[in-house]
Amino acid sequence: MRKIVVAADSFKGSVSSDQVCRVIKKAMLDSLKNVDVVCVPIADGGEGTIEVLGAKKIYKEVNDAFFNPINSYWGKLGDYAIIELATAAGLPMAKHPNPMIASTFGVGELILDAIEQGERKLILALGGSSTNDLGCGIACALGAKFFNKKGESFVPAGGTLIEIDRVDVSGLDPRLKECTFTTMCDVKNPLYGPEGAAYVFAPQKGATEEMLPLLDAGLKHAAGVIERGLEISVSCIPGSGAAGGCGGASVAFLNSTLQSGIDTVLSLKKFEDTVCDADLVISGEGRFDSQSAGGKAVSGVAAICEKHKVPLVVLCGSYSIAGQDLPAGIKAVFSITNGPCSLEDALSNGEKNLYETAFQLGKLLACFTN
Amino acid sequence: MRKIVVAADSFKGSVSSDQVCRVIKKAMLDSLKNVDVVCVPIADGGEGTIEVLGAKKIYKEVNDAFFNPINSYWGKLGDYAIIELATAAGLPMAKHPNPMIASTFGVGELILDAIEQGERKLILALGGSSTNDLGCGIACALGAKFFNKKGESFVPAGGTLIEIDRVDVSGLDPRLKECTFTTMCDVKNPLYGPEGAAYVFAPQKGATEEMLPLLDAGLKHAAGVIERGLEISVSCIPGSGAAGGCGGASVAFLNSTLQSGIDTVLSLKKFEDTVCDADLVISGEGRFDSQSAGGKAVSGVAAICEKHKVPLVVLCGSYSIAGQDLPAGIKAVFSITNGPCSLEDALSNGEKNLYETAFQLGKLLACFTN
Repeated sequence: MRKIVVAADSFKGSVSSDQVCRVIKKAMLDSLKNVDVVCVPIADGGEGTIEVLGAKKIYKEVNDAFFNPINSYWGKLGDYAIIELATAAGLPMAKHPNPMIASTFGVGELILDAIEQGERKLILALGGSSTNDLGCGIACALGAKFFNKKGESFVPAGGTLIEIDRVDVSGLDPRLKECTFTTMCDVKNPLYGPEGAAYVFAPQKGATEEMLPLLDAGLKHAAGVIERGLEISVSCIPGSGAAGGCGGASVAFLNSTLQSGIDTVLSLKKFEDTVCDADLVISGEGRFDSQSAGGKAVSGVAAICEKHKVPLVVLCGSYSIAGQDLPAGIKAVFSITNGPCSLEDALSNGEKNLYETAFQLGKLLACFTN
Repeated sequence: MRKIVVAADSFKGSVSSDQVCRVIKKAMLDSLKNVDVVCVPIADGGEGTIEVLGAKKIYKEVNDAFFNPINSYWGKLGDYAIIELATAAGLPMAKHPNPMIASTFGVGELILDAIEQGERKLILALGGSSTNDLGCGIACALGAKFFNKKGESFVPAGGTLIEIDRVDVSGLDPRLKECTFTTMCDVKNPLYGPEGAAYVFAPQKGATEEMLPLLDAGLKHAAGVIERGLEISVSCIPGSGAAGGCGGASVAFLNSTLQSGIDTVLSLKKFEDTVCDADLVISGEGRFDSQSAGGKAVSGVAAICEKHKVPLVVLCGSYSIAGQDLPAGIKAVFSITNGPCSLEDALSNGEKNLYETAFQLGKLLACFTN
């Protein structure tokens, strides 16, 4: 055993991804001799992506989702600017969340600031939004104009999407044409309908039962206007319903590609270069389930491990797939809990249990490797 | 990986030791190529020892602890006769447990039957007794006589130990002198006193608060009579308090040695011969704790693994020692639970979780062994 890569997500509510990596690294160094341990904290492209990527924060005062000033930031990482939707229009910062009025305007301001400062490769991290505005706020901040039937220009939000009569993108910042956008998006939801942004995600953003059909109808209506105006179909793109329609908007207004968050993060971290000569990868996350096997952080790690035939072990708080059902690349998943216990106890003992399990894994591997 | 030995105890209330071994074996064969897997179900020398050892049951009608006839048995294994105290004077079979009157007389009858049938190497499995008679029942069945102050002979039980005035061993079966006895005994309790048989074990045998001082005084008194009569000190031998004083009685009346149950079981199973050329040993038990590290089944397995430098992994339902605190020989202990859960769920999913965890262990090891 010469080289181990530790690429772990956070154990939500218990241990941060940084700390998970540090704890596993210490356990490996304590149990194995002469081993090189490389830590790669990861995230799935949602909230916290800028921090996990170790990007430099560039602060900028913008409007929050309710048009109050907020000191937000975007992240600079090499040639890339990372725009995290949640830093300007995030649900956690909303005191009185209301997707009828919440706007992504501030996110557009962050994009504009990055462009002002010379950035041309932009990455959008969706996730954690409080909005349902089909990204119209972003579009407005970048120069698009939406008009109602009276010909008045306005910034549409969830509740006023239905009033959009016409969209004019001739005023969009010309520098957008010089930019390439990648949008990290892990959901496959369409823009509207029973699986769309409103019905699936708006309830957690504060929408009442009564608001849902209005929000859904607004998305459908606005999508029609945009599709006619821009000659781009956005409603049916899987993922267009992400972040209240920002998935679709990033395609329509920014000509963005949608890409799995973890794949984007791993690519930015040059993860393949790190893994290709490793003997073992240890990953981890709080809850390892079929979602993990689908779009979450560990699945991206697993795909790269499988490609390079490097064995991957997952340490987690709990798991619901194991044994022969594990995705290709993952050899074993162990829960760090030491037996039947409450979720509360598991969360509070996370760090200790993680160390012990990782230490034992190292001790065991030491018997069978040099 | 050429040879794996699976030496597991039962997961109490969930999976029998036989089944634990079978499940782990299947998981190893499913996950590793060309590996030889040897199963050694083990037990710690308490109830069920005869079955775990695969000894042939020799049936014999004897008296139970309350002098009702019972079809009991002892076990024949090669040159050895295994006498399991619980088959004649066991707590589970007692409808109205009462250590004041319960007797080990039937255990003595089993011993006598084995001797009648030519057995000369006898092994006593204590554990699970309903008695507190200092083994006087056993002694009586084998020919010893206890007298009260009036010179009347009687079979002392817990409540009448105090009445013993004199013991006469001249009538003990002379064939006992040709026999060697080994008593499996894992507790270190003295005969009487606060850590003695009565105060520590009698409550679970149905003793009331009021009975405890009487039982304790009886043990102390009878020990004095025996020590004067036989010129053998039994009170202070660690383990003399096992099985209501049978630990002490086996030394006094049978000239037995006391030996850890698991060591005896492993020796009878020729476990060292099986392990010495193995690449890995997998053990398991329901609850792995500091008692396991002390006298229970896994500790005996660990000692032999350590001696032969064969790595040992413990799979268990729950554990309370791990990481750097594990006893020598044990490389890792993993709980088979897949996260926070109730004890009930853990017990009912035992077999499935055990298979999955073992399968993954095998998959992982397959990456690092040939």
